[in-house]
Amino acid sequence: MHITSEQRLDDGVLEREFTLGEIPGTLWTPGSAAPATPAPLVLMAHNNGLPRREARLVARARHTAAYGYAVATIDTPGCGDRPRSAAADQARADLRRAMQAGEPVDEIFESLVGPLVEEAVPEWRTALDALLALPEIGGPVGYSGWTALGIRLAAVEPRIAAAGLFAGGYVPRAQREEARQVTVPLLFLLQWDDEGNPRQRALDLFDAFGSKEKTLHANLGGHTGTPWFELEDGGRFFDRHLK
Amino acid sequence: MHITSEQRLDDGVLEREFTLGEIPGTLWTPGSAAPATPAPLVLMAHNNGLPRREARLVARARHTAAYGYAVATIDTPGCGDRPRSAAADQARADLRRAMQAGEPVDEIFESLVGPLVEEAVPEWRTALDALLALPEIGGPVGYSGWTALGIRLAAVEPRIAAAGLFAGGYVPRAQREEARQVTVPLLFLLQWDDEGNPRQRALDLFDAFGSKEKTLHANLGGHTGTPWFELEDGGRFFDRHLK
Repeated sequence: MHITSEQRLDDGVLEREFTLGEIPGTLWTPGSAAPATPAPLVLMAHNNGLPRREARLVARARHTAAYGYAVATIDTPGCGDRPRSAAADQARADLRRAMQAGEPVDEIFESLVGPLVEEAVPEWRTALDALLALPEIGGPVGYSGWTALGIRLAAVEPRIAAAGLFAGGYVPRAQREEARQVTVPLLFLLQWDDEGNPRQRALDLFDAFGSKEKTLHANLGGHTGTPWFELEDGGRFFDRHLK
Repeated sequence: MHITSEQRLDDGVLEREFTLGEIPGTLWTPGSAAPATPAPLVLMAHNNGLPRREARLVARARHTAAYGYAVATIDTPGCGDRPRSAAADQARADLRRAMQAGEPVDEIFESLVGPLVEEAVPEWRTALDALLALPEIGGPVGYSGWTALGIRLAAVEPRIAAAGLFAGGYVPRAQREEARQVTVPLLFLLQWDDEGNPRQRALDLFDAFGSKEKTLHANLGGHTGTPWFELEDGGRFFDRHLK
């Protein structure tokens, strides 16, 4: 892991850009993080490979780090700072067009996001190895964000101890099947009027998880309307399971 | 309001039994409550007129009072310490039998709980008048518990500023209609596998409320399996709206 830049934020959080081979990432650690008091780690991924520098993800990561966690994110292949894929760009354009036209999007979504998850998971596990080797980061590990990636990671990666998942209306077929294999405690966050995530599918997915402890939080409003107090609720969820 | 007994609990909460005409009730106030620092009030009702002395309600009330709220509950006509009604007792027995046999319960439920809500609401408003006249209690007022009663109270009583509602699977027809008239912030608590509260009906009711700010919390498990952290989440919900 090569640190390429770093800055200390106002609240003491240290924000570091890194590369891990071809993978670019960002790591936030709390001001108090030191080898003597390693911070628990939260892997934070943005839905469907949105850029890791996207403002909402960054705000969520900084807040979570200020709350006492190490937080890390990486760009998925073809996304963010990584070389674009013409096929994926075309699929994204098709998806947007179909959604705006109110047409069925399952097949386009599947062809775009299915491979994205397959490619991303080994990279997140590589990142996890590297992050846990840092002396200021300890276990256990939480996951927060992109539902499809979180399902696969929680199903195959025993170091994931709890997961907060967001907007599970559209999830590739493989991950809908794998939901039963997820057994870690879950906080499943749903926007009741999320135009891009059919509500009933999200409820069905919540029902399918194998976890004995799972909590659904639903709030009125569209995709980007999640109220601020859910960030605090997410922090308390991780406190219960990672601290 | 006549105080008939009082005891100081270990955490400083003062628990007082009272009567208000024929209505018996209990009031819990935090140790810090004094005329100089009036506590916000939470009205706490148990589903379908269960006794106000029931252990789970008492535990919830004491915890909420220790958290800084005045909490009050009264027995609904025919329930708890009040003279029994032979017709209601028969309806309760019929309801239990029908539920155990897996038969439809809507009509029995309607005939039992519909009139219960009608009778209870004026008494709760009378209690509210008396409680707010006490110098150690201030506004605004929250409501917690029994969904059907909470809907009617929130619809007709402008002093109710926020409501936490539990187990809305079976609700009388009149209150299902009135849900659209409820506009205060809501926290709607649902047990995902509540054998006595059909899940889809509860979700439909959540959808129907007129409130712009409404949050659903659902947890795995049956009717009495609500996890302890929901009590804290409920406290934070009231903190946002009553403090």
